[in-house]
Formats: sequence, structure tokens, C-alpha cells
Amino acid sequence: MSRKVCVVITARPSYSRVRSVLRAIRDHAGLELQLVVAASALLNRYGATDRTIEAEGFTIDRRVFMILEGENLVTSAKSTGLGVVELATAINDLKPDVVVSIADRFETLATAIAASYLHVPLAHIQGGEVTGSIDEKVRHAITNLADLHFVASEPAAHRVVRMGERPETVHVTGCPSIDVARRALDAPPDDTDLFERFGGVGPRLELSNGYVVVLQHPVTTEYEESRANIEETLHAAREHAAPTLWFWPNVDAGSDGTSNGIRAFRERWTPDNMHFFKSLPPEDFIRLLHGAACIVGNSSAGIRECSYLGVPAVNIGGRQAGRDRGPNVIDVTYDRKEILAAMEKWQQRARPESDPLYGDGLSGARIADLLADVPLTVDKRLAY
Amino acid sequence: MSRKVCVVITARPSYSRVRSVLRAIRDHAGLELQLVVAASALLNRYGATDRTIEAEGFTIDRRVFMILEGENLVTSAKSTGLGVVELATAINDLKPDVVVSIADRFETLATAIAASYLHVPLAHIQGGEVTGSIDEKVRHAITNLADLHFVASEPAAHRVVRMGERPETVHVTGCPSIDVARRALDAPPDDTDLFERFGGVGPRLELSNGYVVVLQHPVTTEYEESRANIEETLHAAREHAAPTLWFWPNVDAGSDGTSNGIRAFRERWTPDNMHFFKSLPPEDFIRLLHGAACIVGNSSAGIRECSYLGVPAVNIGGRQAGRDRGPNVIDVTYDRKEILAAMEKWQQRARPESDPLYGDGLSGARIADLLADVPLTVDKRLAY
Amino acid sequence: MSRKVCVVITARPSYSRVRSVLRAIRDHAGLELQLVVAASALLNRYGATDRTIEAEGFTIDRRVFMILEGENLVTSAKSTGLGVVELATAINDLKPDVVVSIADRFETLATAIAASYLHVPLAHIQGGEVTGSIDEKVRHAITNLADLHFVASEPAAHRVVRMGERPETVHVTGCPSIDVARRALDAPPDDTDLFERFGGVGPRLELSNGYVVVLQHPVTTEYEESRANIEETLHAAREHAAPTLWFWPNVDAGSDGTSNGIRAFRERWTPDNMHFFKSLPPEDFIRLLHGAACIVGNSSAGIRECSYLGVPAVNIGGRQAGRDRGPNVIDVTYDRKEILAAMEKWQQRARPESDPLYGDGLSGARIADLLADVPLTVDKRLAY
Amino acid sequence: MSRKVCVVITARPSYSRVRSVLRAIRDHAGLELQLVVAASALLNRYGATDRTIEAEGFTIDRRVFMILEGENLVTSAKSTGLGVVELATAINDLKPDVVVSIADRFETLATAIAASYLHVPLAHIQGGEVTGSIDEKVRHAITNLADLHFVASEPAAHRVVRMGERPETVHVTGCPSIDVARRALDAPPDDTDLFERFGGVGPRLELSNGYVVVLQHPVTTEYEESRANIEETLHAAREHAAPTLWFWPNVDAGSDGTSNGIRAFRERWTPDNMHFFKSLPPEDFIRLLHGAACIVGNSSAGIRECSYLGVPAVNIGGRQAGRDRGPNVIDVTYDRKEILAAMEKWQQRARPESDPLYGDGLSGARIADLLADVPLTVDKRLAY
Repeated sequence: MSRKVCVVITARPSYSRVRSVLRAIRDHAGLELQLVVAASALLNRYGATDRTIEAEGFTIDRRVFMILEGENLVTSAKSTGLGVVELATAINDLKPDVVVSIADRFETLATAIAASYLHVPLAHIQGGEVTGSIDEKVRHAITNLADLHFVASEPAAHRVVRMGERPETVHVTGCPSIDVARRALDAPPDDTDLFERFGGVGPRLELSNGYVVVLQHPVTTEYEESRANIEETLHAAREHAAPTLWFWPNVDAGSDGTSNGIRAFRERWTPDNMHFFKSLPPEDFIRLLHGAACIVGNSSAGIRECSYLGVPAVNIGGRQAGRDRGPNVIDVTYDRKEILAAMEKWQQRARPESDPLYGDGLSGARIADLLADVPLTVDKRLAY
Repeated sequence: MSRKVCVVITARPSYSRVRSVLRAIRDHAGLELQLVVAASALLNRYGATDRTIEAEGFTIDRRVFMILEGENLVTSAKSTGLGVVELATAINDLKPDVVVSIADRFETLATAIAASYLHVPLAHIQGGEVTGSIDEKVRHAITNLADLHFVASEPAAHRVVRMGERPETVHVTGCPSIDVARRALDAPPDDTDLFERFGGVGPRLELSNGYVVVLQHPVTTEYEESRANIEETLHAAREHAAPTLWFWPNVDAGSDGTSNGIRAFRERWTPDNMHFFKSLPPEDFIRLLHGAACIVGNSSAGIRECSYLGVPAVNIGGRQAGRDRGPNVIDVTYDRKEILAAMEKWQQRARPESDPLYGDGLSGARIADLLADVPLTVDKRLAY
Repeated sequence: MSRKVCVVITARPSYSRVRSVLRAIRDHAGLELQLVVAASALLNRYGATDRTIEAEGFTIDRRVFMILEGENLVTSAKSTGLGVVELATAINDLKPDVVVSIADRFETLATAIAASYLHVPLAHIQGGEVTGSIDEKVRHAITNLADLHFVASEPAAHRVVRMGERPETVHVTGCPSIDVARRALDAPPDDTDLFERFGGVGPRLELSNGYVVVLQHPVTTEYEESRANIEETLHAAREHAAPTLWFWPNVDAGSDGTSNGIRAFRERWTPDNMHFFKSLPPEDFIRLLHGAACIVGNSSAGIRECSYLGVPAVNIGGRQAGRDRGPNVIDVTYDRKEILAAMEKWQQRARPESDPLYGDGLSGARIADLLADVPLTVDKRLAY
Repeated sequence: MSRKVCVVITARPSYSRVRSVLRAIRDHAGLELQLVVAASALLNRYGATDRTIEAEGFTIDRRVFMILEGENLVTSAKSTGLGVVELATAINDLKPDVVVSIADRFETLATAIAASYLHVPLAHIQGGEVTGSIDEKVRHAITNLADLHFVASEPAAHRVVRMGERPETVHVTGCPSIDVARRALDAPPDDTDLFERFGGVGPRLELSNGYVVVLQHPVTTEYEESRANIEETLHAAREHAAPTLWFWPNVDAGSDGTSNGIRAFRERWTPDNMHFFKSLPPEDFIRLLHGAACIVGNSSAGIRECSYLGVPAVNIGGRQAGRDRGPNVIDVTYDRKEILAAMEKWQQRARPESDPLYGDGLSGARIADLLADVPLTVDKRLAY
């Protein structure tokens, strides 16, 4: 009898990251995929990821609304609580053999708590990484609630074991986000028009002579500064003058500061070298990234995917502090001059080589095989 | 300006454990106590701990109802989520400088999550211990969310540091539950009548020739067996025939099996050597424990407080597995013969000596001093 | 295509009342029954009605826990809110063509709100009655949210129309609780032993020379007095000395006062003429009622079912004020002497005749036929 | 001792409507104002009404977040439930003598339920009106939960009494929204620049030769059509060519369709005669309305305030069906030609005269006096 694997997708980037896992589970003879889509993945203003998921051939078993509107610390806390209440219903209805949760956001913690109290074994993808901020606390808390760990790298595995997890439950699978990158490199070139396909706001840009991608999220513990921070990047990108493709940030406490900063900048400057997208399908995004002269911002994509892709990254501020880095990253602070200088440095240097630090592009199948084979239990005790 | 310290009490045993901390905070010139009473601590069927708290001179700032009735896995999960939603309101209203949470139950996790997302520094009492079951996961998850750690013993401190906490945030204070024991040993003997003062059900017992105390909680991961388990203990105690004082278990998934087992046994056997209490004020409980020939069950009191008190313990089943033990503990399985044999063994042996394994009885003041002095921050990163 | 009818059962008495409706819907060629069991109908301490429902051959589609423990005004309010949150999930999953809610409790209001905002037509059983207290407000609020009204009597229909409902949506079906009574009168006599079958606490009683049934609920707006009130009835029943069968009250703000009053009375007096049941299957209860010398308390059964059965009732206090009465009712206040006097009066008088005031015992089929045939819409406007 | 009056404000239009009531309560010697601001009144994308409230000199006692993001039927239902859960905390903390709720939205129902179950007397402003749709059900349900009724007009009072409310609890106070209009007519003319003060998007318009105001909300039961509907109005306004001031709609199921329709229209047509505001302070809005050549859309302002102001209204679709109308209203369907024709008709006709149908502009003081003087009770029974 096949095992029922319930994957909970709560945000656009989580979906991008695990698409290869979803495919591998769905196509595995020993597994049955149950898909719960929740939180910002259901909201129009974050790109209605649920519609993307269905368009890509997956069936959604439950939709779980759990974001309390307000975008401040109180509503973040309460959204987590609501998530536990609501996800408990979904998981209890679906009766999976194992629940899979991804990374380190509050909805992921809600998933982990619901599964734990329902005594359903919990598999966690992407534990053991070091980033600072509330995400760091949450990621390791989830590790402690999880029964199975699919980590990206050896250093991450080492940390998870040090935290007390039994080594036989910790598997270095690589990060499935790299699978998307591998697939994209393998795919034939795409000639269709980006602006026509994905809309967005701002002028149509000429991309054939190189372009920059920007992805900058608000940083939870620096709520008030979100707006000031985004303005530094906006001004740097305006001065740099290369065609620039921006992506809107995820829901999070502070996203308002970032979003409003972008809106105000557009009203004030009507920058003719910037186009703003809500989101792209994961493969299109990777292909776009692969073709970019450089990625700017504080997204993990600059450090993780771009390490594999060999794309230069300008990483701004402390959001990615602590992450292992390949040779493709230059770190800068929230300062338009520093940002601009780093962008120019990459214009002059040779493009970095691909580095397998975060995975070899085959994680999805590896994770599915493990989900089908490893013993599943909820019993746990510190391994020392 | 004094620091506002918000302590969240969610169950009778948590209150007993931290009463000395509460007193020390309230009486500290540099601290202001904010008291939130929540969950089963508000419910009549668990002894209405809130009334005890007020009777002992504390002021309750917020009462937070969060237990969804049903006593099964789904309601445990949902109660945790509700707790986050409701405690976020209380903590946000009170605006403390630090939140203190105790031990490892689902309400404690709710407290930890609410404080974390509100960016209020979180102090955790009693981390780093090893017990197995869902409590183990939850305890370590709370350690990962916490910014300050007040642990009972050196081995616990070692484990918390291994999990990645910075050593300067981990303080071996001893467990404040031992403070109660110290105070009780210091207090003058009490001659008032137990049965008159605390009611309960069952016959009045003659205690002057020795008596046994029983405290047996349901074990979360063995839901179905709760009733069978309690029956073994009931039969052993009936056969042993010594006057026996029972205490009802806490709310938890499975408590119904235990409670109903006790009720059915009473209806069937009307045992004349057993009296059943809901709860006693902590000091009375300790004094009672101190005078006991032996404690039977699966409560941590048998291992922790009784280690300091030098009271023999018959520890049943796996609930306390992994805890460090002094010489006062005999471990048995859920088997009436084994339980009875251990009780009889303690009748013949000398009473064990007091052992400071879990504290020296002065933890409360130590914790209050630390809360007043240490740096408070919510920024954290794995310390390796 | 058959219509999907979702019935939400939230308490033992609601189930008893609509069992014939459930059967008629289930057996109707044009209807498909969806059964949601919620609130106190899921709780052991109110007789685990969900197990009765399954034992009687129905399939439960969703179980919805929604009672926040605490039994005070705050938890009543919050339980209503939680009910809306949780029932919205169930109704949205089941996608019924019409939702049926019963009577006037807070869970019924939660059902009505969830259905209304989901734009699912709402049928309400038992609107238009007059009883006072919070129930009165809630009952009429539900009438305003409902699209279809199945009322017990002509006076009730008149009131619902006066409130602004279009007459063509108001159907005098009789109350389906009377169907149970009719069925019970038709059934062959039952010789099995009551005490063996249904347990309960208290001595085994000899019933062949007549007995009394007591059913007294706490009255929401007189919270503090619940305990005093129940004591009057307890003393009257003790003095009257006839074998007395008591039933525990439903969950409600104040139930604690009533329940604790009963418990304390039993401890103090160990009355030898009283036996206490949690609940009986509806038909057994009716049969028991039919054989009773009299029913005492404040349950609507004394006024409604007993009107049809021709069983004398002693109705205590204001809980049933405003209800139309047949000749079988004597009203008294919460006073042991008045209660006793009324009980004795019925001993001397002839048994009243059956009266069809609340129905003819054929409501279930009538309601099912209407659910299959009438137009279903959510559009509404005051009819004047 | 003065009575504590807790007013719950849940949306921008509710605040506008009761500002004079808030002032009168605050300034009344026998009353103490407690202000709870909740739901969309706290959200930036609906104009952050809480900041307006504070800027106008009121103190906010509690902020209650309760909108579950998603803008569909399920999230509307769940937001109502959450509102009950959260408002129960606020009302229970504040312990008011009476709670005041306004009109007919889901948050108002949540307020009414929380107050009812907490046994706090409930005063309802604006009951007894006829509008159709879910609002109609909710408005009358609130009437049934309310203990005091402050209605706008004699016909409304008549309907509330017919629904069963005791006549002595029903007071024709006029609608306090008219107070704003009276004040605005009395105030000196304002010469400051609208576009500078209130921002918004779109070109700066020349208003001195007349202008049109548009306010069109999505209609809950016609979810799918919201976008089509708004486009008719957009095209009519574009063709009419007069300077046009638009206001964004409130949060509600379907608001997305409307908002997205507006956004898409702007992208496609960049209309040079339209400017879009989020909201204006109530008096500025009324002054703007008073100077308008005509108001277009489906807001009640066109029928209520504009009746008093003598401003021509083009009322689109069924949202205001059933409301009593003065001579200033022309009704049309969602059809650009009809809309345009009505706008042109008003260009040719004389401006209508002021009509006191909905109030004389002195309701605030009248309501405050009643709140200070009338008996407060939660006991209720149908008055027939």
C-alpha cells in the first residue's frame, strides 16, 4: 500500500523550491500526493500561486486561508495560531502517513505544530541553515518538531545532528530548488515575450544587451527600516541604468514598508529602466535569472540557485548572513553607493562558474525515494 | 526603570513549580510582575488554580481561555493554535520587556510562539531535559525560540548549549520547584485536618502510621492505554492497603481514559484505603509528599522534588525515561505486581538521603536577579 | 439530481428532536443527507451523541469541535465565534444545496452565520417560539438569517411572518420531536433493564409502581443561581420519595453550578430514591417519559413532547415562559414546597389527554418533502 | 456614576456615520466613551481609519484585527467568527454598560454576538432599513440581538416594532450621518488644495466648473459580476468627460473584482478626467459631495446624505433597492448608456431641494442623551 504524503505549500517561493519534489512524489509508485495550499499562496496580491499549481497539473486537496490582515507583529503571531487551528482540520481530514513542510516561515511552523500534535510524522526540508532573525528561531524549532530531515548540504546536516537529531533521520538530499535550475539549463531556449506573458507594471524593456534582476524582501526585525532600505536599492538600480526586472516581496510583517516604498518611487520618478512583476512560474524565473548579468537584493536565490547557475549576486544587508556562500556573491550594506559599486564590479569581472554547494539538481527524486522507504515514527528523544 | 516580566501560568504544576520565582519577581525592586493565567489553570475540573493564585496574594492581569474541549489529538493541536491567537492579545496589551514560559506543554509552546512573533524576549525555565514523547519535541522547540534559558542542572545546560544556544544565555539556576520543598522543610509542622481543608472524594484516612501518594498522568502517545495503565496502579494500591492519597491528572489528550478509569474503579470497588484530591496548594502538597512512605506514579515530582526531599519513589512506565535520577527512584512497568513489589521494597529499605541534583532550593531569587540584570534581546543565531 | 441537505447537530436534544427528519432525508429519493456533528454532541460528558448517531445507522461526514472550555460568558461568546470559523470549513467542503439548523443555541447561530456568508440557503427548524432569555434573541436572529422556516405550530408561523419573512417560506410542519413520541407509542413494550443498559450513578430503583423524571437545565441569564435552583428540586424530589430518574443538563454557561449542586447533594445525602443518567437514546427516553407519573424541571420536553404524550408536567421557573401550553402543565417557582405540592397534585388528578398542539408525529417526512420540492434561494428582503 | 459606552468602529463609512455620536458621548457628563477600532478600519488599504480617528482627537482603547485575507465567501464567514472571538476579549476587558454597533456588516454582527453572549446591553444604530442582499439578513438579525434601537426614520421604526421589539426600546433619532452634512453646510468654505492634501492617483483635475463623484461598492451576491459592473460605470464616466473623483470600495467579498477592474481600466485607458482617492475625512467628503454636480454609484450616500444635501444622485443596480428615496435619486441598471443618460439628465434639471427624510442633523446629541437616560437591560421577549 502506498504512503500518503501531505505537502503543505504556503508561499510562492516554497512552491518553486519543491516543485520537483511534488512531481517525484506524484509519479512515485509507492507514494500518493496530498497537496494543501495555504496562506499567501492563495492570495491574489502574491500572485495566486494556487492557480499556478493547478495550471502545472497538480490537484489541490485543501485550500487553507490563515493570514490575518494587518501586516504587523500581532497579526503575524495570530496568523501562526490560526494556521495551526486550520491546518489541523486539513491534516486530520486527509490522514496522511507523513507531512512535509518547507523552510522556516510562520506558516511552516504552524504546519509543524499541527502535524506534531496530531502524531503524524513530520518531514522538514531545508533545516540546519543559519540566517539569523526570527526565521532562524523558527527553522530550528521546526527541526525539533520534525521526525525526518532533508537538508541541502553537509554543514546543514552536521548542525541538525548537533541539535540532537538522530543521524539516521538526517539526509543530505541537496536543496530541491536546484532541481529547477538544472531543468531550466536543460530546456530549449524560450523566445516568447516576457512582458506580454506576465504583465506587471512599468515600461517594456529591451533585454538582449543584458539586464539585472532585483528581489528584496522586508526584514522582519527591522520593520521600520523596510522603506528606507528599499529606497537605497531603487536609487542604485535607477543610476545603474541597466534594464531591471523587479519582483514584489512576499507577505510578511513589514512588507507594507517595502511595497509602499516601491509604489512611491514609481510615482515620483517613473523610472524608465524598471519593470515590476508579481511572480513568474519557477522555471521562467530561473531562466530569467540564468540570463541575468546579476541579481540584486536579499533573496536566498542569489546565494543558492545562483551558486549553481553561476550568476553574479549582489547580496544586500543581513538577511542572508550565516549562509554558506559560493564564489558568486558580493555582500554589501543598505547603501546605494555600495550597491551600485558591486553591480559595476560584476560588469567587469568574468562570470563565476557553477558550484554544487546547495545541490546537484536531483533532490526531488531523492526525497521521494526516501519518503517511500525510510521508517516513519513520531517517537523522538535527544540523541545524546 | 524596572523591567516588566510577564509570566504565563497554564497549569497547576507549572504554578507550583514557579511560585518562588513569582514571589522573587514581585518583591524585586528592579522588576514588575505581570501575571497571565491561562488554559487548564482556569478550569474548575483541574482545581481552579487561578483562585489559588489570588488566594496566595498575586494579582492576575489577564485570564486567557484556550482549551478546546474534546481531549483528543485534534483538540490538542487546535488548543495550541488558539493559545497563540489569544496569548498574542494578552502579551501585546501588557507590553512586557520579557516573557517567562515554563517547561514543555502545548500552552507553553503557544506562549513561546506568541512572544517570538511579537519580538518580545523569551525566557524559558526547565529546558534541556530528556523525557521522550511529544513533550520532548516541544521542550526543545521552545529552547530554539527562547532567548534566555534557566535550566535545572549542569547536564541540561550542556544539552541546551549543544543545541546551538550561546553559553552566556544559559544559566544553571536549579529548578524552582525545589524551592517549594526547601520552604516546606523549613516551615513549622501543620496540624490542621487535610480532609476538611481540601475536600476531595473517598473516605477519611488515618495517616499517622504512614501513607502513600499517587500521581499518574496519561501518556500522550499511548492514548488508548491510559485506562488500562491506571487500573494496574489502582489494583496495586488497593492490594498494598496502606492509606493512599490520589491526585487527579492534568488536562491532556488521553486524560479521559485515566479519569474514567479512576471513576469506574471507585464505583466498582469503593476502595476504603483511597482518598482522591483535585489539587493542594503547592506547599501543602510538598509537606504531604515529605511525610509519605513513598510516591507512586509517573509524575516528575517523584524524581525531582523527591530527590531533594529524600522520599522513595516508584516510577511507572516510560513518561520519565531519560531524566537524571537520584538514589530515591525504583522504575517499574505498568504492571500491578511490579508496582506492588516496589512499594513493598521501599517499606523494607532505609529512606534515601536528600540529593541536590535538581536544585538547592534557592532558584527563585536567582532567576529574578538574572531577569533584572542580563541583556534582553530577540536576535539569535546558532552558536556554531 | 438529488439535493444535498447538510444537517448540523450540535447537542443531544437537537439530535433527539430531528431524528425522524434525518431518517426521512436519508430515505428520500430526491435528497442526499450530509451530517455534521459538532459542539457538545461530540463530548463524553454530554453523552457522546456522535456515537449514538452512528449506532443508529447514520454516517457522520464531519466532526467539528468548537466548545472553548470554561463554562462562562466569555467562553460562550468565543465558542460561537469558533463555531463559525470551524463550521465554515465543513460547509464549504461539503458544498450542500441547503443547510438545516435546529432551534436556538449558540452553535445553531454559528451554523446560521456560516451558511449565510457562504451563500448557502438556510432552513431553520423551530423558529417563531417565545421563551425569553438569550435563546429568544438568538432564535429570532436565526429566523432573520434563514431562508426557509419549518415551524411547530400556527402561532409560531404567525410570528415568523410578522417578523418580515415571506409567508411562502414559512411551513407549519409540526415539531419533529413529536415524531419520536408517536413512534414510541406505536412500538412494542420494552422489558430490558434500564439500569443495566444505560449505567449512570445511584441505586437501582423499582419503577413498576410509578416514578418521576427530572430534567433541569441551568438558566443562562441567572448564572449565579443555578446551584441554589437545583437544590430546591433535589430536596423536593427527596421528600416526595417516589423513585426518581434524573438526567444531567447540557453544556451551557452555568452548567457547572447545576452539575456541582447535584454532585454535592449526592455526597451529602446519598439519596436512595434517585438514579442519575447522562442520556438515553431518544426513543428510550420518550418511552420512559410516557410511563412516568410526572416530569419535573424546566425542559421543553415537559411542555412539548408531554403535551402529545399526555404526561403531567411540573414546570419550574421562567425558562419555558411564553411557550404555548397544553392542559398537562403546572407552573411553579424555584421553591421546594411549590414543587412538591405540584407533584402531589398530579398524583391525585387524572392523567391529561394527548394534545396535538406541537405536532401530529409526522413532521419528519413533511420536512423532507419540502426540502426536496421548495425553491431554494438566499435572496431575501423584509416582506413589508 | 457615568455609564461606560463602548462603540465598535469597523469600517471607514461607519466612522463617518457616527462621528457626531462619538463626540456627543465623549462630551456628555453622564457618559464615558470606550472606543474599539476593528476590521478594515485598521487596514492601510482602506485608508487606515484608526489614524484618522486619533487625528480627530479620539483615544482608541482597543485595536482588533479580524479580517482573514482572501476576499471570498469562506473568508467572510471566518472573519465574522474571528471577530466574535476577538471582540469578546475586548468587550470583556473594557466591561462597558452598553455596546453600540452600527448598521449591517459582518463585523457588526460579530460585535452584536459578542455583546449578547457577554450579557452586555446592545444598542444598534440604523436598524429597520430595507436593502436586500446578505446585509438585509444581517441587519435584522442584529435587531433581534439588540436591546436598544436608534433608527433613522419613522418607517424604519415601524419595521423594527413589527419584528417584535418593544416600542419603548425603539427611538427615531435620525441617522447621525446627516449630522456630518449639517456641520459641513455650516462650516466656512475651504480653499485648500484637494489633490495636495489627499494624494490619490490620477491627474490633477480642474473642479471649478463642476465635477462628478463616484462611489461604487462590489455587491456581495453578484461576486463574479463585480468587474463587469464597474467597467460600465468607468466607461460612462469617461464618455461623460466631466472631471470625476472616484473613491475606492470597502473590503468585502468581491472587492477584488471591482478594484482590479479599476486598475485595469487605468492601465488601458489612462483616463485624463478621473482621479482616484482612498478616502477623505468625513467632513471633507461631505463638502465635496455638496459641491458635486452629481453622485454616481451604489453608495447609500447618494440616497441618504444627498437627500439632505440636495445633491442629484445616479443610483446604479440593486444595492440600494428598498431604501426610501427623496426626489434627488434616478435609478439605473449596470449599463453605461443608462448611466450616462442619467448623468446628462441631471445636467439639465434644477438641483433638488434638501429633504429631512433621513434626519435633521442633530442625531448625535439625541443618541448620547438616550444612552445616558434609558433603562439598560438584556432581557427580551417578542412583544406580541
